[in-house]
Amino acid sequence: MNIYNNAPIGVFDSGVGGLTVVREIMRNLPEERIVYFGDTARVPYGSKSRETVTRYSRQIVRFLQTQNVKAIVIACNTASALALETIEQEIDLPILGVVKPGAEMALQTTRNKKIGVIATEGTIHSGLYQRLIAQKDPEVSVFGQACPLFVSLVEEGWTKDPVTEEVARRYLKGLLEKDIDTLIMGCTHYPLLRSLLRQVVGEKVTLVNPAYETAQALKRMLAELGLERDPAAELQGGKYCFYASDAVDHLNEFARRILPFEISETRQIPIEEY
Amino acid sequence: MNIYNNAPIGVFDSGVGGLTVVREIMRNLPEERIVYFGDTARVPYGSKSRETVTRYSRQIVRFLQTQNVKAIVIACNTASALALETIEQEIDLPILGVVKPGAEMALQTTRNKKIGVIATEGTIHSGLYQRLIAQKDPEVSVFGQACPLFVSLVEEGWTKDPVTEEVARRYLKGLLEKDIDTLIMGCTHYPLLRSLLRQVVGEKVTLVNPAYETAQALKRMLAELGLERDPAAELQGGKYCFYASDAVDHLNEFARRILPFEISETRQIPIEEY
Repeated sequence: MNIYNNAPIGVFDSGVGGLTVVREIMRNLPEERIVYFGDTARVPYGSKSRETVTRYSRQIVRFLQTQNVKAIVIACNTASALALETIEQEIDLPILGVVKPGAEMALQTTRNKKIGVIATEGTIHSGLYQRLIAQKDPEVSVFGQACPLFVSLVEEGWTKDPVTEEVARRYLKGLLEKDIDTLIMGCTHYPLLRSLLRQVVGEKVTLVNPAYETAQALKRMLAELGLERDPAAELQGGKYCFYASDAVDHLNEFARRILPFEISETRQIPIEEY
Repeated sequence: MNIYNNAPIGVFDSGVGGLTVVREIMRNLPEERIVYFGDTARVPYGSKSRETVTRYSRQIVRFLQTQNVKAIVIACNTASALALETIEQEIDLPILGVVKPGAEMALQTTRNKKIGVIATEGTIHSGLYQRLIAQKDPEVSVFGQACPLFVSLVEEGWTKDPVTEEVARRYLKGLLEKDIDTLIMGCTHYPLLRSLLRQVVGEKVTLVNPAYETAQALKRMLAELGLERDPAAELQGGKYCFYASDAVDHLNEFARRILPFEISETRQIPIEEY
């Protein structure tokens, strides 16, 4: 039995939204241990620069390394879009973002070769979804739309609200006019708007959830590297550990809303010191 | 001529919203020099803990001290509510927040002794507006309402939009039912919603803008301390200097929208190192 395989997966996000990725990992890789870090003291990343998001991500990766993780998942679309390419050259651990799995599924899904992406300003302006898709199939058109209000609307709990629906109609109007048949929900909060987005885009557009695709990609990666956890191995230090950079109540509350398990112990750590 | 009086006023905020306070200082104290710092790398403060907001504010005060400011204005309501009382005990400089001047004007304004406050979650939950008003007149009732969507709506530029009006109606319903005659716009972004808020609350409710009241309080404070700037003194280093912790374009863009002067040189500084 390889002791290293028993190590946890490190998952991080700018705040609480990455818990939607944690949820998919819990569902699809139920044997794996998880260490989650949410940068709640500096959230959000969506409107911040590449340089700042990369500096923050680097600190978090250093923290996760102190937790002896066997692999890292960047659950934040913005950090995946702005920081992953730099960070994967700096560390020896296997590392995965949410953008590539989302882009790949969109490519497999589209029939008319017109894909829409909704995300933060940072993710859209990075052009990474567009670039990854163009590299694989230059005939596919990708249309991006930043939706800066969605995160606040979800955090306010207005996920089934007429106000949110009106905002969504406005943001999505341009994409629907381009006749997209596939829409990537390119920000961790957006899958929580799935039923509302479904109403706005209609039945003909397929919604792609990068959180789910990332859990699948992680599964394949662990299998390829022989890093899957042995379910019989002892659970030293608990199966799921949660950390945040600011006071923990907001993360606990959000976790209670969306995770299938109760989170009891979230710890606050001074991320600036890493 | 006192050289020290020629020193600038340090003004800081969690991001760009504090420029509404800068605008009032420019208008009402046109001879004063200003050094502004916007913490755009860690914005917003509105949903963060007292401990984190105090740590950030302390770093910014240390930075402003390196700029040899003669006084400090905390332009952010959340930082004024959560950090001012701690920080004023730690430094020798005169320091002023936006909450007290706003509370005092509301007290002078109300006739039926029912005041509403709209602000971030942090400001509302701190209870500072409520406490300051109760100290001066225990007969006054203060009703607080957090409006977490307003900042995003203003930054999206939807200041005269039906969506924003619907959101405002919902947030303000409870306060209007309490029959308030005075409403404190307790977050730096909210004065940019003034005409929309006016429509929602009607003519009978007086809107109090803490940014304006703070400029007036600053004027009185400088006069009392004999710290007013001599307009004839040489302007070494420029009249208005702007700093931000993240890339400067967002601050410059917002400044262009609301300030009477063009901002040419904004510099980025690593605030975590202070």
